[in-house]
Amino acid sequence: MERPQLGVCYYPEHWPQSMWAQDAQRMAQLGLKFVRIGEFAWSRLEPSPGKYNFEWLREAIDTLHRHGLNVVLGTPTATPPKWLVDSMPDMLQVDNQGRARGFGSRRHYCFSHEGYREACGKIVTALAKQFGQQPGIAAWQVDNEYDCHGTTLSYSASAKSAFRNWLARKYQSSDALNRAWGNVFWSMEYNSFDEIELPLLAVTEANPAHRMDFRRFSSDQVASFNKLQCDIVRRYSPGRDIIHNFMGRTLAFDHYKLGADLDVSAWDSYPLGFLDQRSDRPEAFRQKFLRAGDPDWQAFHHDLYRSTSKGRWWVMEQQPGPVNWAQHNPAPAPGMVRLWTWEAFAHGAEVVSYFRWRQVPFAQEQMHAGLLRPDNAEAPGFNEAHAVSAEIAQIGAITQTLADVVIVFDYASAWAWEIQPQGAEFDYFRLIFDCYKALRSLGLSVDITSPHNRDFRGYKLVLVPGLFSLDPELVESLAQSQAMVLLGPRTGSKTANFAIPDGLAPGLAKEVLDLKITHVESLPQSAPLAMAKHPGNLFFWREFVELGERCTAVLSSADGNTVLAKQGKMHYLAGWPDDLAMRSMLERLAVNAGLATFDLPQGLRLRRAGGLVFAFNYDSEPVDLAGLAGNNDFVLGSASLPAAGVAAFRAG
Amino acid sequence: MERPQLGVCYYPEHWPQSMWAQDAQRMAQLGLKFVRIGEFAWSRLEPSPGKYNFEWLREAIDTLHRHGLNVVLGTPTATPPKWLVDSMPDMLQVDNQGRARGFGSRRHYCFSHEGYREACGKIVTALAKQFGQQPGIAAWQVDNEYDCHGTTLSYSASAKSAFRNWLARKYQSSDALNRAWGNVFWSMEYNSFDEIELPLLAVTEANPAHRMDFRRFSSDQVASFNKLQCDIVRRYSPGRDIIHNFMGRTLAFDHYKLGADLDVSAWDSYPLGFLDQRSDRPEAFRQKFLRAGDPDWQAFHHDLYRSTSKGRWWVMEQQPGPVNWAQHNPAPAPGMVRLWTWEAFAHGAEVVSYFRWRQVPFAQEQMHAGLLRPDNAEAPGFNEAHAVSAEIAQIGAITQTLADVVIVFDYASAWAWEIQPQGAEFDYFRLIFDCYKALRSLGLSVDITSPHNRDFRGYKLVLVPGLFSLDPELVESLAQSQAMVLLGPRTGSKTANFAIPDGLAPGLAKEVLDLKITHVESLPQSAPLAMAKHPGNLFFWREFVELGERCTAVLSSADGNTVLAKQGKMHYLAGWPDDLAMRSMLERLAVNAGLATFDLPQGLRLRRAGGLVFAFNYDSEPVDLAGLAGNNDFVLGSASLPAAGVAAFRAG
Amino acid sequence: MERPQLGVCYYPEHWPQSMWAQDAQRMAQLGLKFVRIGEFAWSRLEPSPGKYNFEWLREAIDTLHRHGLNVVLGTPTATPPKWLVDSMPDMLQVDNQGRARGFGSRRHYCFSHEGYREACGKIVTALAKQFGQQPGIAAWQVDNEYDCHGTTLSYSASAKSAFRNWLARKYQSSDALNRAWGNVFWSMEYNSFDEIELPLLAVTEANPAHRMDFRRFSSDQVASFNKLQCDIVRRYSPGRDIIHNFMGRTLAFDHYKLGADLDVSAWDSYPLGFLDQRSDRPEAFRQKFLRAGDPDWQAFHHDLYRSTSKGRWWVMEQQPGPVNWAQHNPAPAPGMVRLWTWEAFAHGAEVVSYFRWRQVPFAQEQMHAGLLRPDNAEAPGFNEAHAVSAEIAQIGAITQTLADVVIVFDYASAWAWEIQPQGAEFDYFRLIFDCYKALRSLGLSVDITSPHNRDFRGYKLVLVPGLFSLDPELVESLAQSQAMVLLGPRTGSKTANFAIPDGLAPGLAKEVLDLKITHVESLPQSAPLAMAKHPGNLFFWREFVELGERCTAVLSSADGNTVLAKQGKMHYLAGWPDDLAMRSMLERLAVNAGLATFDLPQGLRLRRAGGLVFAFNYDSEPVDLAGLAGNNDFVLGSASLPAAGVAAFRAG
Repeated sequence: MERPQLGVCYYPEHWPQSMWAQDAQRMAQLGLKFVRIGEFAWSRLEPSPGKYNFEWLREAIDTLHRHGLNVVLGTPTATPPKWLVDSMPDMLQVDNQGRARGFGSRRHYCFSHEGYREACGKIVTALAKQFGQQPGIAAWQVDNEYDCHGTTLSYSASAKSAFRNWLARKYQSSDALNRAWGNVFWSMEYNSFDEIELPLLAVTEANPAHRMDFRRFSSDQVASFNKLQCDIVRRYSPGRDIIHNFMGRTLAFDHYKLGADLDVSAWDSYPLGFLDQRSDRPEAFRQKFLRAGDPDWQAFHHDLYRSTSKGRWWVMEQQPGPVNWAQHNPAPAPGMVRLWTWEAFAHGAEVVSYFRWRQVPFAQEQMHAGLLRPDNAEAPGFNEAHAVSAEIAQIGAITQTLADVVIVFDYASAWAWEIQPQGAEFDYFRLIFDCYKALRSLGLSVDITSPHNRDFRGYKLVLVPGLFSLDPELVESLAQSQAMVLLGPRTGSKTANFAIPDGLAPGLAKEVLDLKITHVESLPQSAPLAMAKHPGNLFFWREFVELGERCTAVLSSADGNTVLAKQGKMHYLAGWPDDLAMRSMLERLAVNAGLATFDLPQGLRLRRAGGLVFAFNYDSEPVDLAGLAGNNDFVLGSASLPAAGVAAFRAG
Repeated sequence: MERPQLGVCYYPEHWPQSMWAQDAQRMAQLGLKFVRIGEFAWSRLEPSPGKYNFEWLREAIDTLHRHGLNVVLGTPTATPPKWLVDSMPDMLQVDNQGRARGFGSRRHYCFSHEGYREACGKIVTALAKQFGQQPGIAAWQVDNEYDCHGTTLSYSASAKSAFRNWLARKYQSSDALNRAWGNVFWSMEYNSFDEIELPLLAVTEANPAHRMDFRRFSSDQVASFNKLQCDIVRRYSPGRDIIHNFMGRTLAFDHYKLGADLDVSAWDSYPLGFLDQRSDRPEAFRQKFLRAGDPDWQAFHHDLYRSTSKGRWWVMEQQPGPVNWAQHNPAPAPGMVRLWTWEAFAHGAEVVSYFRWRQVPFAQEQMHAGLLRPDNAEAPGFNEAHAVSAEIAQIGAITQTLADVVIVFDYASAWAWEIQPQGAEFDYFRLIFDCYKALRSLGLSVDITSPHNRDFRGYKLVLVPGLFSLDPELVESLAQSQAMVLLGPRTGSKTANFAIPDGLAPGLAKEVLDLKITHVESLPQSAPLAMAKHPGNLFFWREFVELGERCTAVLSSADGNTVLAKQGKMHYLAGWPDDLAMRSMLERLAVNAGLATFDLPQGLRLRRAGGLVFAFNYDSEPVDLAGLAGNNDFVLGSASLPAAGVAAFRAG
Repeated sequence: MERPQLGVCYYPEHWPQSMWAQDAQRMAQLGLKFVRIGEFAWSRLEPSPGKYNFEWLREAIDTLHRHGLNVVLGTPTATPPKWLVDSMPDMLQVDNQGRARGFGSRRHYCFSHEGYREACGKIVTALAKQFGQQPGIAAWQVDNEYDCHGTTLSYSASAKSAFRNWLARKYQSSDALNRAWGNVFWSMEYNSFDEIELPLLAVTEANPAHRMDFRRFSSDQVASFNKLQCDIVRRYSPGRDIIHNFMGRTLAFDHYKLGADLDVSAWDSYPLGFLDQRSDRPEAFRQKFLRAGDPDWQAFHHDLYRSTSKGRWWVMEQQPGPVNWAQHNPAPAPGMVRLWTWEAFAHGAEVVSYFRWRQVPFAQEQMHAGLLRPDNAEAPGFNEAHAVSAEIAQIGAITQTLADVVIVFDYASAWAWEIQPQGAEFDYFRLIFDCYKALRSLGLSVDITSPHNRDFRGYKLVLVPGLFSLDPELVESLAQSQAMVLLGPRTGSKTANFAIPDGLAPGLAKEVLDLKITHVESLPQSAPLAMAKHPGNLFFWREFVELGERCTAVLSSADGNTVLAKQGKMHYLAGWPDDLAMRSMLERLAVNAGLATFDLPQGLRLRRAGGLVFAFNYDSEPVDLAGLAGNNDFVLGSASLPAAGVAAFRAG
């Protein structure tokens, strides 16, 4: 494990060449080690068809390199130039209203368009040949923020054709597909793959199995688009890390599958923008953390993306000040840029890279802060980055170890419950995040893993909520683990073909849990269900359990139905607990699993990293850590943790 | 009058043939008499163009018949197969954004497409010839749930052409049409019928007369589409009842006109789904009746559809547990499936048929409960159906008689006020239903009738709220009746051509009510108008009345305007009363009409049927009926009515 | 200055010719002087291509003229007839979803369609030749309510072609355009003007510079469309006033630019409709003024449109009773029609013309009140107009003088902040109107002026909030004025090319205000920012100020940032104050500027006109004016001002 590093995103093409050297010098002085460049520069790299202009980029790389900076070079495929779009206008994504999306911003392409894939292959090959071995090139970023602006699903002619081929490969005959989807229902049977449409503008909902396969296909198209570029880069620039930068709460493609082709997963962390735009939290919460961000949001994504590329991950873009794209764009509270950086390091980030070096005065993102202001003066984030730079030297390497608790997170389940929520509020991400928040409020560190994980050794508590379909190996792995295991709600309630399993839910888990879910109900926000002898309520969702002989009810609802059932270390949760009920229930499981828990205030969060415990104060009031840290030494900060403060002490 | 019967909806094509006999046996044992089948099976009946495969259906019918079950055979025209759509893609409905709706669910056709009508004629002819005389066939269902998913209005080329023809037949010359519509306004005059467009994507609202004729035309297209099938079935399967299953709060076509071609009107009763999705009631009400349904919703539709086919009607689909299609899908409170069934019988249903026999594990409706679970065990609704079956035998036939009160309900008025609400909340169904609820809360039984009714003999109170246009025969019939009559608000405020009548509203009613509505105002929810010396307020709507000499003001608003005017037995209501004001006003009229009224709690409802009074407890607390029933005998239940309870006692 | 006059809008084509003479006679008796006719009559003037039928119109004009009425003749280009649309269907506007808007209402044309411009030229030429010199023709109205129903922006092929030409004229080379827009960002560079698209359906926001130029272009298209007609009318009907009738809160085109081609600006004043549909005010305010309208809305538009045609302006359409087009359409409180009329006169209207003479019983506006009811009886508005008519004679001419306060209002700034609000609630109109309301509540009369004004002599207080881009002449003019000047928030924060200016905001104003806006933040409604030692809060928006040596902080926020800065008479406001803070801040500035202020109740408003002070009571309770009027004489009303009352007294 090496000590973590800082980086920045930089656009030499936006600034006069005369500024480059001074910029590089200031970056180096600030303590930055990595600079990402080039990912939107296609129109400058290939101003007209086949006429490459790489000189400026070579000069920019050299300038940075001369100042000791390592370059991450982006492939520019998120922004095809207009001449390319005009040469094949059907390369544009078609949205779910059947409209081609226009040129004029970014990500204007359909992942299934063969012509565009070929064009991407050409420019990436040219870049990789040109720069693959150039000193200063430390890594590559492939494309930029897949799915951003909802760009995964495309209803184009290219997508239709590719979907039919994908289905033909999967099912081999339309009869097999008809049986798998249950197309006898409503006379949806097809006589040929060429009859199959994309699930577009159907009169009422299309078959969920149809939609599920379209989601799987669409995810696969993103992965294969990505792999095409990775293969080229790996060929011409061997030994350099290949990276992609994911976004927050982005579920439209399987990040595990795509991540398998990367060396490093990165993500773009915008705590205030995400709280404003992508959070389920109520108004009072949003107001309290307006300038700090949700204390669990960043941590969750750190833990998630740590798992998508075998543990190696970066923050490629870190919010350094107000952004431009949320409904409301407040300035971060003083200290938060530093706190967010440290939280990423505590979760194992190799690099945290700020977006962007200098605020650009023109075009779409002119209101997005940088480390520098447009007038080249230092913005507030600059000094916070500087502070981190000094502290890194002080603390050194940070070790990562397995957490005690792990949550199984599955992209396909997000698609399944989006297709069939059954209750308007049922949302897979929210369910998982509610679990995660409760665990964090107990002071626990958490890992996240894929449903294809077969090794749960070392964990004391495993949560598998809402996993739509179980496979036998996963059930076996869970049963073999020494951990307390919690399934449900909805876990195992579908086959892979999106049907109710024989013998009902929880499907294959019935092998280890002697119970059946006979039916379910979804409830409006206004109708919570009280628990019997337990704090909190169920809301949104409740399942009716038929207990077999080997299972016992641990908790019940006030109306007498089982809420938590148990068979040995296996547990089943038959509903969606609110914050209070969730925390209390998970505390009980954690304690039974032998874990120490705390009752943390809303704004205080901990992260165990090797022999250190990090503490982060998202609140605007100071917190006293004396009770938590005891007599242990502080390597960063002290027991008196100010607002927006960070501390690290040796684990007891 | 025969005793009522139970039935069920069944899909033999969804299950292995090996299960059919056992299913039939269990149905018979449960006490079911009718089984509806076949209405979505086109792709199994005609897997490729012109290749019929009817054997499986014959076998299914025979199997059911062997167990003493009567079959209702559906025509499969709600789900044309893909090969048919591909042979004429312009058969698809075009929505009000100009987009063709896609294949992949159901009801994917335009009522005006001649090619599709021809294809329907062929398959229905083939089915009627094949099965029309087969033993076991007791009745036919034509198509399924017309207008479901908003499928009546189509903006296709076929619809445009058919609309022009419809207008040409109606008006004979474009000059006549221009005069009738008032097209001189905004230079909308046409020189030819071929210039007329569908009212699609106009810059601002299109001429209300234009839109009204489009609504009438669209309704007629549904009726003629239905009649085409009825004529074929009647020819080849004489003597069998022809049925269609309507939906709740479905107003896009005139059910009286369509019902005139049926032998039996049916409707599909989903109390919990409708409360969640189609109710105007406030949050507290929805929460209170979350698992019981609106105590008046089912009754209203029972009374409405009883009037669309000369008194003969069924519930074709009765919710037996949670459904899959509302925003929230709670489980019914124990007892409600039985209660709903009895309420239908009390209102005169010949048959109540549950949807569906067994929950299907695949495709769109896999989360919709059946009487059986997917694992073939009995679901909660099964036992409630069983209880009803036993009670039917106990009670025997239920007689229907005229109610004391009748409401005139008119589909065209729903279109008119949707086209020209003049206040955002003005909704015809809501207005009628507000009246109906108030009458029910007074313990009254209510009939509903068409505006073409000319015989109000036997009624003591007639309500005609919101009837957009009056004809002289109706005014004459009302004047001739011995009943108290209430017109308004908005009654008679338009001519048939959607113009303000000469001499202003209430138009032809001025012959019997010496008053004029000089102008109206619509009000936001936040601005109610208090009444003078009367409980409650007006809201949403208020009219300004100029009283003639023969009329007197009965009630006024606090700001001094007439709210209720009277001339003999004729009354005019010049606004929209809230629940309190409505109930109090109707109580006054009812008492003046010589009717006995009660002050029922919100969850208790009564229905007089012949010599019996049925009582239904929608509440979750028990009710004591002793005060209502006095010393009269109970033939079902007792004076102590539990939650979800049903009782029937002899009328005093 | 002549005494003000009354008028009315009339549609002879809607009524039998036999009614015209009596109508004219009643108009004259009522005291009306002007009648607007003809603006929607194209289908009657040219029933088929090239076949004009002008006789009926000549007769109508003569009839009105014989009764001493002056005619304002409208060109009918807002309602092209169907035969014309069918001859060139691509003349229809295309909306921002890419859909052509349909025929069937009005304003169904694209301003950029050359064929439609030619057709307009023909019909206007024919009309102007025919009627240009006819006695009785006093003025012309060109088209009707530009932009009504959102008709300025069109995404048609005609618009795309015209936009490319407009850009080519402006930038001369695509390289210049690329530099101006900053197209290097996201590879949006164009190699040719023919590559440029309209900003339609882009994946995420299109370049703000691109959108800004599209807004400028679209505004110019309206102006040139208007000028084409003005030129024709001026040629054939010299000496007659050319008028267009604007709407309320209509910002899509630059009314100053268009107004420069008019003799008289008019607007259509619908106080109750606008309050319901276009107001930002909270529910309680809307309820209080439900039947009176916003006390400042009409005044604001009067003051605005007074400035768009060198001081000459009319109300072309005055609401006379309930309208038909808002969500809720209440009846005006008794007296309000009179009050609205007098408020217009007090602000300098030459004519107030009621819409319409008689409520028309058919087509789209049948629920819109007139001075007469459809049955030809007098509606409530009739008598209020009659009262005004008598009072005009009593008071005589009303003089207009400069107000003490002026607000700079800029259409391009409205476009800029709509394109880039940066916070969901940031709305230019709302910002300006918040300022205006605060000034009015202090009893001040206000002028509004264009950002091209170079002469601020005579003003004591000048407000320039939110002006997106400053030019040096304006800064110079402001600095030269003797007035207190207030800039900000956001004033000068962009260059004309929609970029952040060198040296940051407030751009060129830094010459007179030694400060920099380093960054900004936008805030949700739930997170106001308290002020230090000052009533009220900032909300929605806050800027961070770096003060130079010559500037001082006058007010700060509770968290210690400058809110109001000052350098001599120049002030900068670094946020959006709520009502309380705004009023208090402007009161301070006004007092410092030597102005007398009052603390008016919410419903009372004043207007100084020459030597008179008018008082208007929008409240439903009476107000005592004794304190305000002192011993000054009343020329209208008295110190005891009833609900909906109007008074005028001599200025002290």
